[in-house]
Formats: sequence, C-alpha cells, structure tokens
Amino acid sequence: MILQNLKKFQKISETKEGITRLGLTDWEDEAHEAAVSVFSRFKRITDVRDGAGNTFLYNGDGKGKYIVMGSHLDTVPAGGRLDGALGVAGALAAMQRVLRKHRDAPVAVAIWADEEGYRFNNGLWGSRAFIGAVTEEELLSLRDRDDALLAEVLAERGLQKKPRRSRETGELNVKFRYKAPIEIASYLEAHIEQGRKLIRAGKRIGLVTHVAGVRRWRLESVGETNHAGTTPMRDRRDALVPIAGMVGRLPQLVRGVEEGVITCGALGVQPGVANVIPDRAWAIVEHRAPSERDQDEIARRLKELVATTGPRAPGVGLEMTPLSAVRPTALSDDVTAGVEEICKKSNVEYMRMTSMAAHDAMNIVRVAPAGMFFIPSLKGVSHRPDEDSRKEDIKLAGEILYKWALAELDRVL
Amino acid sequence: MILQNLKKFQKISETKEGITRLGLTDWEDEAHEAAVSVFSRFKRITDVRDGAGNTFLYNGDGKGKYIVMGSHLDTVPAGGRLDGALGVAGALAAMQRVLRKHRDAPVAVAIWADEEGYRFNNGLWGSRAFIGAVTEEELLSLRDRDDALLAEVLAERGLQKKPRRSRETGELNVKFRYKAPIEIASYLEAHIEQGRKLIRAGKRIGLVTHVAGVRRWRLESVGETNHAGTTPMRDRRDALVPIAGMVGRLPQLVRGVEEGVITCGALGVQPGVANVIPDRAWAIVEHRAPSERDQDEIARRLKELVATTGPRAPGVGLEMTPLSAVRPTALSDDVTAGVEEICKKSNVEYMRMTSMAAHDAMNIVRVAPAGMFFIPSLKGVSHRPDEDSRKEDIKLAGEILYKWALAELDRVL
Repeated sequence: MILQNLKKFQKISETKEGITRLGLTDWEDEAHEAAVSVFSRFKRITDVRDGAGNTFLYNGDGKGKYIVMGSHLDTVPAGGRLDGALGVAGALAAMQRVLRKHRDAPVAVAIWADEEGYRFNNGLWGSRAFIGAVTEEELLSLRDRDDALLAEVLAERGLQKKPRRSRETGELNVKFRYKAPIEIASYLEAHIEQGRKLIRAGKRIGLVTHVAGVRRWRLESVGETNHAGTTPMRDRRDALVPIAGMVGRLPQLVRGVEEGVITCGALGVQPGVANVIPDRAWAIVEHRAPSERDQDEIARRLKELVATTGPRAPGVGLEMTPLSAVRPTALSDDVTAGVEEICKKSNVEYMRMTSMAAHDAMNIVRVAPAGMFFIPSLKGVSHRPDEDSRKEDIKLAGEILYKWALAELDRVL
Repeated sequence: MILQNLKKFQKISETKEGITRLGLTDWEDEAHEAAVSVFSRFKRITDVRDGAGNTFLYNGDGKGKYIVMGSHLDTVPAGGRLDGALGVAGALAAMQRVLRKHRDAPVAVAIWADEEGYRFNNGLWGSRAFIGAVTEEELLSLRDRDDALLAEVLAERGLQKKPRRSRETGELNVKFRYKAPIEIASYLEAHIEQGRKLIRAGKRIGLVTHVAGVRRWRLESVGETNHAGTTPMRDRRDALVPIAGMVGRLPQLVRGVEEGVITCGALGVQPGVANVIPDRAWAIVEHRAPSERDQDEIARRLKELVATTGPRAPGVGLEMTPLSAVRPTALSDDVTAGVEEICKKSNVEYMRMTSMAAHDAMNIVRVAPAGMFFIPSLKGVSHRPDEDSRKEDIKLAGEILYKWALAELDRVL
C-alpha cells in the first residue's frame, strides 16, 4: 500500500532531473488530489482543502479530536521521491488499515501545503497557518520569482479572497481567513532522514525528540569602490575581503559544539566587476544546534569574529543583522514513547535523535502532542533526485504509523 | 582653450550621477563630433572616422608621418569629466596653437574609440584596432548586456560590413576591415592620474615610464550541494568556504611587492540559497605590478595559496585558470625625455612613475614612439563623478602638449 501510494505521487511531475513539485502550484494540487483519490471508495471519509491549501482526509463527522498522521507533498526543485511523500503515503496506508479494524475510528490524514516554501521562500506554510502563525504582513510582502504577490496567488488558487486596494489610502488590504477543519488529539509524522546518523549507527528508526534551532544573520560591509589598478593596497576600503575572510573561517565557529552546523549559502558583491574594488558585500550565515545554549555560543563566536575582523579592515563598515531565529523545539514525549514502545516490541533497532532540519511537526506540537520518526536515507542525502531508502524501511514506516494509530485509538476509546 | 573644450565634452551626457558616455554608443559619437567641430573653420584640417570608430583630425594631405596627440572621449557609467577628455581637449588646443605658428605642420589629434571597453568588456578597443590587434573571434563572441553581438553593433554604427551567415555551414562570418588613416611619427597622451602618487609627492607632472602588467585568474571550486541543517560539518563538501578563505587572504600575497596590488572584484556562488551548502563558487582575481618579475612572484604566491587551501577542503575540487595576462609595457624613453626637458625648462615639479591602469599609449608604443604624462587627481580617485584636478594643472597639461609638439616639429623639420 505505502509503496503503491508512493508510486502514485512519483508519477506526478517526475522528470529526468528528479521531482519538481513546488508548493502552491498546480503540481502540488495534483498530488493532493491523488492522495484524496486513495479514499474515493470510502463513503465515510471526508476530504477538505482549507484556506492555506492543506488537505485533510478524516473519518466521520469532523467533530471531536482526531488521531492524525501526515506530512507534505511539495518538493524542492529537482527533489527526491520520499521527502514528504513518505509520510503522506504511509499515513494513507495506515488509515486504511485502521478503518478496516475500526470503521468509526477518529483518524485523519493531514497533508500540509508548501512545507519546503520554495516559491515564496516561506517554509512550513500550511502547518503555520494551522496553528495561527501566518501574518497578513507576509501575504502582502512575499513575492515569487515572477513577482506575484503571495496574497494574489492565494486568491488565484481559490484559497483566499482577492486583496483589495483601499479607495482612500491606495494601500492593498488583505485578511487571512483560516479555519482549521479538524482538531488534533495527537500527531505522528514519518520522514526520511536527511543526514547520515541512522546509516552510520546502523539503526532503522530515529525517534526525533527535538528539532534544532535555526538562526540566520546577514553580514554586510560597506567600503568604497575604486580602481583596482591605481589604488594602492593601503588606500583601499575593500568591502569583499573582510566578508570573504569571515566566511572562510565559519567552520571554526562550531568547533566543539555537538551537532552544531554553520553555513553561508548566499554571498553577494557590488559592483561585481573584475577591475573595480567592491564597495559592498554581504553574506547570509545560518547556524543550527540542538540546544538554545549552543545556539547562543555560536552566535557569540560569530559576533566576536565580526568584532575582530572590523579593525583589520579600516574604513569598512561591518554589520551583523539578525534575519530570523527559530528556537530549538521539543516534540511530544508521549508520542515518542509510543513509537519507542512499538520499536521495542517489534525488535526494531532505533535511536533517539535531533532533527537538524525543520519539519511541520515542530509547528503542530504547539497545539497538540506531536512526534516524528525518521527512516535511514541510503546516501544520507536529501533534496536530491537520488534520495532513497531501503524498501523494507519504507514498509516499516507504514507499519509503525499503523501500530501507533491503533495504540492511540486504544488509549482514546 | 583646453578648458573650453573640456566644457564642450562635459555638456554631452552629463547627469546628476556623473558623466555616462559609453564607447560604441551615440554618446561617444556626439563627443567625437564635438571635437571635430573645434576645427570647423580650419580648411586644411581633415577629419576621418576609421573602421573602429577612432576619429583623426590631421593637417594637410595625410601623407607622411604625423606628430600625434590624443586620448579618448568615452567614459565608464557615472564617470568623471577628465578621464580621457583631458587628453583630447589638450590635444585639440595644442594643435590649434601649433598651426598658428606653422600652418603646414604635420600634426594630428587621435581620439581612440571605446577605451574603457564598458559595453563589450573589451578595453582599449580603438587603439588595438589601430595596431592590428583586434581579432575576428572577438567580433563574433563579445556581446553587450542586451545580447547584441560586437560584429553587429559595428555594422549598425556604419563602421564595418554586416556579418554574413554561411549558406553551407550556417556559421556567421565576419572580416574586420581596417586601414589606419595616418601614420604616427610620435605620440603623446595627457591623462589625469587615477591614484594619489602625485598628490602625495606634491608633484604636478608624472612622467609615465611604464604601464603595469595585469594578470587575471579564475579561482573555481566544485563541491557538493546538500542540506545546511542535516549535513554535519565533517561530511560537507562546501565549495564556498575555501574560495572565500582565499579571497580573505589576497592582500597578504602582495606584501613586500612594491606597488603590487591584488583584487577580487567578482565572486559567485551556486545555488546561492541560504539553507543549501554551495556546490560551486568562483572568484575573479587580478594582480598588477610594474615588473614581470613581481607579477611572477605574486602569481607564484597565489598558486601556493590554492595548493595549501586544497587539502583543507577535502572533497572539493579547486582550480586556478588564467583568464588574461598583459605584460608590463615600457613607454618611449625619447618621448618621456622630451616631456622631462619641458618640465625642467619650465621649473615644473615632476616625477617618473608607473601607471597601474592600462591606457591607449601602451598599444601605440608598439608601432611608434609613444609617451604619456599625468596631472594630479585631487582626491586620487577615478571613474567617479567627483574626479577632478586643479585648473592650473589642466592648463599645464595643455601647455606641455603644445611645447612637446613644437619641439617634435623642430626635430622633424
């Protein structure tokens, strides 16, 4: 079942360069419809698309609290077949099996919209809407690469009303209307690990106890543009050299911090001409660690690096600005204990671990007990076409979801 | 006279943000026409636009060799009023004065097209054409920011025939037809200094004995893209960190090299997303020094830096590729001695120096004795709207050109 469901999703938008199924596009809609079609013969199942584009499939009348499993069906460009899809395929299969045993079971599948946030650079979109964390400001400020405003795209896709321009002020106004279709009693998400911890440790299941915090900073320098030939070294106010020097030293800043990582993925330089000394440069730096204390320590070291670099670049203004900070999140001990119990009973090798990537479960845990588990990624990669897992581990994910839902049902009923 | 001529040029394409008069555009044409108009009442003066867009104004029948003064009238975007224009304005004024004394004097003004090479990233264009150094390959490969091919732009501007597409192979063919309108007996160019050497030394004239060499390299790295959260530091093949580290250390490579400069003006990173480890990065590095030995030494140190950086970035491929190399050029001793003589007689404080920027004179010296002198730049800047010189130094430049032409005439006649 889980394998069949995965194939169904894989067929949608698969190319030679991997799977490109961006959130808040027709490709994502098609995948949600494919998920809904799995239950087309189940009369007691209702499917709802909410105001953020999340899809819920629930049994019964939608009242009371539900045992929910789920994940997302959008991908990054040229992504793989399991990131997100595994959790949805497994949830659908588990729910079918549960319903065969208990036709009235309050179970549901949640498919969170635009988890990757590629189109609007705005991740965990659907689950943020579900917990009430979407702001109207982002609807009116975020634009995609074609300059389309998020608020307008939501209206075009029939999810929200069109934003209106005020006759008096000329300003665009929007109201984000959102009603959660169901309430969650507890939530479990299966996902492919995006690193190598499980493969290295030889474990089949990773119980995610925490999701690491992410802090993002903008390092920026302002110097003076000048001729690269006629300006002696001592007269220069080169904006790039100090920024580049700091980026070159980033790896030193996480030395000794367990599981700490630091990355500069984006760097820019102006005017960007070979024979002109740059007057502006910037770098986006992000760091992650399982604990807030470790995050504080890395941030302290980064500030120190900026402070010691400044005097070496006289005449260049250096600034370090916070862009975003997501605190480390603890997932539900109860849900984790439930999955652990299943692993123990089934003699499955497992380990507890921190997720270094963000996931929808870190939003859901703010409104209900939510947990997550990983299966090993064969190459330890993610967001790539060659992302894959062993068939038996994929099946195991479906099995664990099923057993967890049954156990939850026992607890509730 | 020189001040009037300068004003004439300044009026063309002047904006609040400085003067933008790019080579091989209508703005450059307009400036050339303004220069020609200075001699509109001189019946014995012929003006010729050659196949590269250079303008020559010469006295008499164009036969025999000419004493030539000149420079260029194109600018960088948002440039200043003196870079190039000073040498042309001075040459026009000096030629007028010479003709008043000697109506048959074999004197000429040369206005070299597209010296800055901004539109096609292809500097010293006109003077390269004059010495036969333009290749048909560049006509068919260089494109401007609007994707217009150099060969096609030359045809549109009426300078060359339209390139033809071969019926058999479908390839574009072009022949660069060029005939130098006059022969040069000797050449002198006045220019604003683009650095602070003269201002610092308190001298009014800089005799340019050499033009520094420029070597350009591309540093490139290839690693592996991966998730910035889930990929531990030891598993990364981050392409940016080693490139950034090297750029941060560039200034160290010219320590102890007199007048040596090194610059990275352009740097790129892929995919350029904050939470993705880069799999590609590149930097353009250029270095300049007055002697080829010093250039060799800087290049050796750069290679060493790449060699020592490689092992610190396991799994990342580092490459250093030469992009271009212009050897240091010696200008004409005779022309320099001529200008020195004038300075001595006039009690003008002067110094000998190397030009760290390229100039048309470094091409002309390949076919005739050519020299160059600088007047001080008040702020030591160039390619900026606030580039300026003292009025008396501008007048002095015109005076020296005039006296040099007279002395050359004495020598020739």
